[in-house]
Amino acid sequence: MSVMESPKVTVVGAGAVGSATAYAMLIRGTARTVVLYDIDAARAEAEALDLTHGSMFTGSNPVVGSSDIAATAGSHVIVVTAGAAQKPGQTRLELIGTNARIISSMIPRLMAASPDAIIIIVTNPCDVLATLAVQETGADPARLFASGCVLDTSRLRGILAERAGVATQSVHAHIVGEHGDTEFPLWSTASIGPVPLLEWTRDGQHVFSADDLHDIAEDVRTAAYRIIEGKGATNYAIGLSATRITEAVLRDENAILPVSPVLSDVDGVDGVALSVPCVVNRNGAVPVQQMRFSDRERELLHASAETLLRTVADVRGA
Amino acid sequence: MSVMESPKVTVVGAGAVGSATAYAMLIRGTARTVVLYDIDAARAEAEALDLTHGSMFTGSNPVVGSSDIAATAGSHVIVVTAGAAQKPGQTRLELIGTNARIISSMIPRLMAASPDAIIIIVTNPCDVLATLAVQETGADPARLFASGCVLDTSRLRGILAERAGVATQSVHAHIVGEHGDTEFPLWSTASIGPVPLLEWTRDGQHVFSADDLHDIAEDVRTAAYRIIEGKGATNYAIGLSATRITEAVLRDENAILPVSPVLSDVDGVDGVALSVPCVVNRNGAVPVQQMRFSDRERELLHASAETLLRTVADVRGA
Amino acid sequence: MSVMESPKVTVVGAGAVGSATAYAMLIRGTARTVVLYDIDAARAEAEALDLTHGSMFTGSNPVVGSSDIAATAGSHVIVVTAGAAQKPGQTRLELIGTNARIISSMIPRLMAASPDAIIIIVTNPCDVLATLAVQETGADPARLFASGCVLDTSRLRGILAERAGVATQSVHAHIVGEHGDTEFPLWSTASIGPVPLLEWTRDGQHVFSADDLHDIAEDVRTAAYRIIEGKGATNYAIGLSATRITEAVLRDENAILPVSPVLSDVDGVDGVALSVPCVVNRNGAVPVQQMRFSDRERELLHASAETLLRTVADVRGA
Amino acid sequence: MSVMESPKVTVVGAGAVGSATAYAMLIRGTARTVVLYDIDAARAEAEALDLTHGSMFTGSNPVVGSSDIAATAGSHVIVVTAGAAQKPGQTRLELIGTNARIISSMIPRLMAASPDAIIIIVTNPCDVLATLAVQETGADPARLFASGCVLDTSRLRGILAERAGVATQSVHAHIVGEHGDTEFPLWSTASIGPVPLLEWTRDGQHVFSADDLHDIAEDVRTAAYRIIEGKGATNYAIGLSATRITEAVLRDENAILPVSPVLSDVDGVDGVALSVPCVVNRNGAVPVQQMRFSDRERELLHASAETLLRTVADVRGA
Repeated sequence: MSVMESPKVTVVGAGAVGSATAYAMLIRGTARTVVLYDIDAARAEAEALDLTHGSMFTGSNPVVGSSDIAATAGSHVIVVTAGAAQKPGQTRLELIGTNARIISSMIPRLMAASPDAIIIIVTNPCDVLATLAVQETGADPARLFASGCVLDTSRLRGILAERAGVATQSVHAHIVGEHGDTEFPLWSTASIGPVPLLEWTRDGQHVFSADDLHDIAEDVRTAAYRIIEGKGATNYAIGLSATRITEAVLRDENAILPVSPVLSDVDGVDGVALSVPCVVNRNGAVPVQQMRFSDRERELLHASAETLLRTVADVRGA
Repeated sequence: MSVMESPKVTVVGAGAVGSATAYAMLIRGTARTVVLYDIDAARAEAEALDLTHGSMFTGSNPVVGSSDIAATAGSHVIVVTAGAAQKPGQTRLELIGTNARIISSMIPRLMAASPDAIIIIVTNPCDVLATLAVQETGADPARLFASGCVLDTSRLRGILAERAGVATQSVHAHIVGEHGDTEFPLWSTASIGPVPLLEWTRDGQHVFSADDLHDIAEDVRTAAYRIIEGKGATNYAIGLSATRITEAVLRDENAILPVSPVLSDVDGVDGVALSVPCVVNRNGAVPVQQMRFSDRERELLHASAETLLRTVADVRGA
Repeated sequence: MSVMESPKVTVVGAGAVGSATAYAMLIRGTARTVVLYDIDAARAEAEALDLTHGSMFTGSNPVVGSSDIAATAGSHVIVVTAGAAQKPGQTRLELIGTNARIISSMIPRLMAASPDAIIIIVTNPCDVLATLAVQETGADPARLFASGCVLDTSRLRGILAERAGVATQSVHAHIVGEHGDTEFPLWSTASIGPVPLLEWTRDGQHVFSADDLHDIAEDVRTAAYRIIEGKGATNYAIGLSATRITEAVLRDENAILPVSPVLSDVDGVDGVALSVPCVVNRNGAVPVQQMRFSDRERELLHASAETLLRTVADVRGA
Repeated sequence: MSVMESPKVTVVGAGAVGSATAYAMLIRGTARTVVLYDIDAARAEAEALDLTHGSMFTGSNPVVGSSDIAATAGSHVIVVTAGAAQKPGQTRLELIGTNARIISSMIPRLMAASPDAIIIIVTNPCDVLATLAVQETGADPARLFASGCVLDTSRLRGILAERAGVATQSVHAHIVGEHGDTEFPLWSTASIGPVPLLEWTRDGQHVFSADDLHDIAEDVRTAAYRIIEGKGATNYAIGLSATRITEAVLRDENAILPVSPVLSDVDGVDGVALSVPCVVNRNGAVPVQQMRFSDRERELLHASAETLLRTVADVRGA
């Protein structure tokens, strides 16, 4: 007698981001089984035990902590958060190289254990690491992609919602490009409910001047730096972002989310992962084919792509 | 020692719509206390008992069923679903007159018992009844409004989502005007994710031709008729719509929803309740000031307003 | 590339109970796909359309309404609510015979289309119909059982909770036996939190006297009659009960619920479906092996079984 | 026009426990407003910003981070997680003294800003700190109590559920006494569904031997140590525990939870906070009056009370 398959998710990396992701999944009941995989078995088991002790309050199953890749077998979604921290004297490129090697060595083994899994790269720089992983494994770009600007988009919508005095859910706007310094908002298609963002007024005055938009984009771009200054890292919102993307996959939602797959001629951008609005379902993420960028947006998109391609080349050359 | 006030909702009318609304509220945990008020005490108590027996599965409080207006006192939101069914030989105008009298006699007493409540009229024709209620009671139009086209908008988004192959949550579109035959979609601002609806393609072909849009609008407009043909009435989706609006009020969400308050110069429309995108929070519903309608949309809006004003006048004259 | 299987539920019967069940499942996100199957296609489609229009508010998929058994194929759970209403002059036994024939003709076809489904009989008398269905199809009793006293248990806990002044979730008590006149509470093991029910006091007085317990059991037993008097039928709480059982199966919960499978020597009771505490998971429902009944409870259990066996024999003999 | 008051919660301490608590509250929608208060403004603001960036995925309001007690004003619940970490060479008693001083200086100011708040002490040793806080402020013990053994009880139920092969929600058992080394399970009233724990068998064998019970109690008692060894601290499960207690207060649930108020003659225990099953609602926590302990349990309860009273005296004497 066959029985129904239950959704299984593996979170790779039991650090602050990985454990916050597993916590969010536990609380939201995202999957029936969550595996926290880390090469540090003691850490993985400790985090899993702490999470499992909360399951009475959520009705979820125990979280499994393991350093054995076999524990991840048959996952439907794999969220990769593992990575090294920057060491004193280490350059950014050296750090990227280290993380690229970590990811490169792990992905093929994860894919072997879960051949049908959708893989979401959260470790930073997520676009670069996703690009390298697709290049090295030959994976279908729809099935291995980076979490990209889903988090940045949440930040943007929160700021716009607060200024406009509406619910975040009523703000429609996207951050695209690199999850990093060259990212930018798609102002040309942003709206508040049915009202184009630029036409939103308060007491007859436009709420969003060109200067405001510039400042808001900057705020979003630098938000992570401000958090890192105050608490040393970011983990909670990225944990919810990864959870949200995972849910869109598991529920086969066809949700439109700005994740970052390796692009194939999206307005001329090719062969590098960066965020554009994508349709996300159980087959992974595919860019919305119908996007029309303004001239300025296209320019920024290409600049963002070039920055990323340069880093990818640097890492491969290093 | 003062204690926190818990949200209380009264649903007026223990018929198919009222009880489905209370059921949705019970399951979603919308309010701490739900009162089902009906002049037929036996009916109200039986529905409340049936609902209460389900509360073990939802963690909610018992639902209170009563024909005593005192039981509704101190409500934060009142959802009015009470009304008569059409009798043989009765004209539509006679039916409206009957329902108008029912509502008119009840609203002042409900307001007296819950002076701070936001009142949502669901009984049809909801726009006409909300207009009359505001005229007669002098209520602040933001605090007494009709559920309007929230349901029709859900229908529209569902159809568009299915055809476009995306999640309903990724479709941004509104039905406005009368909740009835003269309602219409705001095509000019409709989008799928960040893509204007009219630019959405599949395999290089536009998915939504002018004919398609016409048919979709017609589908939405006549959906209720098709359901009524098959099951005699509609109740489930309208129950969820009323619940959704209630939640936007109770949680002070500032959500943008196409409810129907009596308008004051919204693009020239005045003194009649019809649906336009509104900001909904604990102070009720206020039209989005920044809406710009296309010429065609403005024309349809005024036609819808005229139809409603004529009915209002007919009822008052009858 | 294989993709994850999504949970699919079929609700058989688009009447008041079936549609309320589908509504509860839609709101709670119980399954990815809900099919409402009824021999009356117009009715099934109308209910499904009404439900689907609410899905914007729940994030769920459209509900499918169909009179084609093929639409139900591959279901993981099937909830059977279909049945005839009592006709004037028809005896109770004739009605049972009619419903038995309806169920008998449908079950084999449902099983053929969904060979791995767990089947839950809600149509009344649910214990009799489940017994007959297992006898006729040779189904594994763990995989085809009646919803039994899950609803009655909810009623009981609600009453006890209210009198004791605690949350329903903190009351542990079960109704067992026939879902009907011979059902009874397991007082010997009932508790409020860690306190045996009979030791619960208020202001030094026992809250639950022997008379109280008798009255409470009677209240539970007759609750349906009082609701039917007021609204003609019960549908909301039974809809949530069926939803709760379905969730315990789909989530493979191992929850202990008083459902009603055909028993094999449970304290001497054999060959008839009646409610006892069961472990419910994706393999269906199996009675808790470790139950110890008091002498009085055993007596009542056997009396209940005899009543049911007599009805089963009468129906088969009719 | 008066508007409905929205539930407001303050979490004191923006460390690992406080921020995990706020994260759980954000995801579960526990309160409309969550304030994260810490004397380190940068830390509080950074954590709040990280949390707020996740609110798009939860539909919640921004989390407020502040070092200004005014930001906490009007809270309905205050969860205290602030405390110092053990310094090298510092004895346990010195650490307790430090934390007692931190709490003592903060509680009166928090109470002044939120005179109607229920205060939950999570900082360890939570029983000692709650006792001291009640002694110093004269607060009503029902309104200022420690989170106690709610977490330990979750651990216990998880272990029992796994061994018995049932859902955690079907296990009824409590850990009582000190949240620490002298805590113990109430085996005499523990059950699995309606079956006394000690009668639970598998394949005819008792699942829980006396040795097993001893080991399980030990496992629960030492769980935190094992987690701390692997990850340096515990934060996720305690975050969910504090959230659960907060919800029982805000929803006025009358839930039975083993929190730790200062006791007044509970089976002879007086003047010290330790966990016993309590009814938790918007007025705080009151011990279940009807508890009957076995002789062995009473002995352990008194031993636990003496340990705590000794520590309280030591801290006051230090």
